[in-house]
Amino acid sequence: METCLKGKEIEVVISPEKPVIMIGEKINPTGHKKLAAALKDEQYDYIVELANKQIGAGAHILDVNVGAPGVDEVVILPKIISLVAESVDVPICIDSGNPKALEAGLKAAPGKPLVNSVNGEEDRLQNVLPLVKDHGAAVIGLTMDDAGIPETADARLVIAGKIIERAQKVGIPLEDVVIDPLVLTVGADQNAAQVTMETIALVRKEFGVNINLGASNVSFGLPNRQTVNQAFLAMTIVVGANCMITDPMKLAGTILACDLLTGKDLYGKNYITHVRKNQ
Amino acid sequence: METCLKGKEIEVVISPEKPVIMIGEKINPTGHKKLAAALKDEQYDYIVELANKQIGAGAHILDVNVGAPGVDEVVILPKIISLVAESVDVPICIDSGNPKALEAGLKAAPGKPLVNSVNGEEDRLQNVLPLVKDHGAAVIGLTMDDAGIPETADARLVIAGKIIERAQKVGIPLEDVVIDPLVLTVGADQNAAQVTMETIALVRKEFGVNINLGASNVSFGLPNRQTVNQAFLAMTIVVGANCMITDPMKLAGTILACDLLTGKDLYGKNYITHVRKNQ
Repeated sequence: METCLKGKEIEVVISPEKPVIMIGEKINPTGHKKLAAALKDEQYDYIVELANKQIGAGAHILDVNVGAPGVDEVVILPKIISLVAESVDVPICIDSGNPKALEAGLKAAPGKPLVNSVNGEEDRLQNVLPLVKDHGAAVIGLTMDDAGIPETADARLVIAGKIIERAQKVGIPLEDVVIDPLVLTVGADQNAAQVTMETIALVRKEFGVNINLGASNVSFGLPNRQTVNQAFLAMTIVVGANCMITDPMKLAGTILACDLLTGKDLYGKNYITHVRKNQ
Repeated sequence: METCLKGKEIEVVISPEKPVIMIGEKINPTGHKKLAAALKDEQYDYIVELANKQIGAGAHILDVNVGAPGVDEVVILPKIISLVAESVDVPICIDSGNPKALEAGLKAAPGKPLVNSVNGEEDRLQNVLPLVKDHGAAVIGLTMDDAGIPETADARLVIAGKIIERAQKVGIPLEDVVIDPLVLTVGADQNAAQVTMETIALVRKEFGVNINLGASNVSFGLPNRQTVNQAFLAMTIVVGANCMITDPMKLAGTILACDLLTGKDLYGKNYITHVRKNQ
């Protein structure tokens, strides 16, 4: 199944047959003080720098989130999306918890963006899915709902099914729903990574949709998080994850190594080019 | 299925239910000039150093190979095994292509060692399996034969079956055969890693035996081999590899991260201890 996204110039296809797609996560002020300050002070050069750096490191799509204290998302999100779209040609992943900001962002984004995100919460489904449909976008569906993130893969599968059903009801085609099975911190719950891997396999088998993952949460609180994140990315790719919202400066090498190991990078051309460029 | 090995003091169990077992590969003069010279000149302090370093980095078993020009393996292999066994308490993996050296090594090794290796070659099966049986050892079976390493997982499965059958005929129990599916270089053959992963899954499903892998060959000729090796280890562990012949100084962190991610390291105790010790 192919999820086709478009930026100003570049089309990106998420598909199990193709290399893993990397969504650069760095334009997000959560835990990123310098960016939070830049947004508040309307000093946007740093954002353009973050956009270019991520593309240079191999990102195929850029996530844009401006949720920070003192920032009016409805005004600022479309502004930053336009700014990023002027600087780089890739599709945008519009990231907000505020439906009005998402709507403004959808108006500003060129091509066919990805909306981050809906989940199984009734409010979210009702308010966000029609926007996704109206703007011909695609959407990430997180396997959580009003009761939180379920502990079992079966319960996460049920939420994925609900999101897919509701998306189809408003006219969003199946291929434009990308399911994110979520991951909790393995340092706090020894089953966390396994439940995510099981969910990936179940959702792939049941619905055939593409799978996004924000993998780095798995290592929260652990030392040498990079090693845990690298191992987890490789594990989840084997079981079917094919889109990663991540820091490409840290993890593009691992993702490209995985493409090579799964036969999606003939003679290691992409991997070798990446290593030479980033050494 | 449990493969129980014993050293002078320590018992090691290879089992799908337990953490991945690391066999330290560094006592092997192939491509290791300093060690080749040390063996030739009978300067053995360096070997004791290599043994201790690997145990410190997390190795559970030590491979001992003395195959180098100017070294009489039949004399030197048992000598080095005794030396290593005096220094460390873990089981020994006796590594030689020479059956007479293996026999001498088996006499010198304490406890219940692992023999590295047999494969589907008639000569090897006839000459080595009886030694393994007579000394109550366990054995690694490589999925290759006189015709080389097969290109398909199905053909490697057939060789695994042949090795297991022949081992059982001489009285070696199934649990004392550890199959190594081998891996070729992914830079030369884009299917190399996938065929290995398929073989692991097939052999596990068909015979339930434990799976050893010398994973680092996968990255031969590529830049930044460590990233490829880390990703490949994680991928193969997901599909069923549970024993790794590797450089623990480079890859123990990744293997321990995989244990943590597969629920075999409660609260990351082993992983955290390893990171703190090796930082």
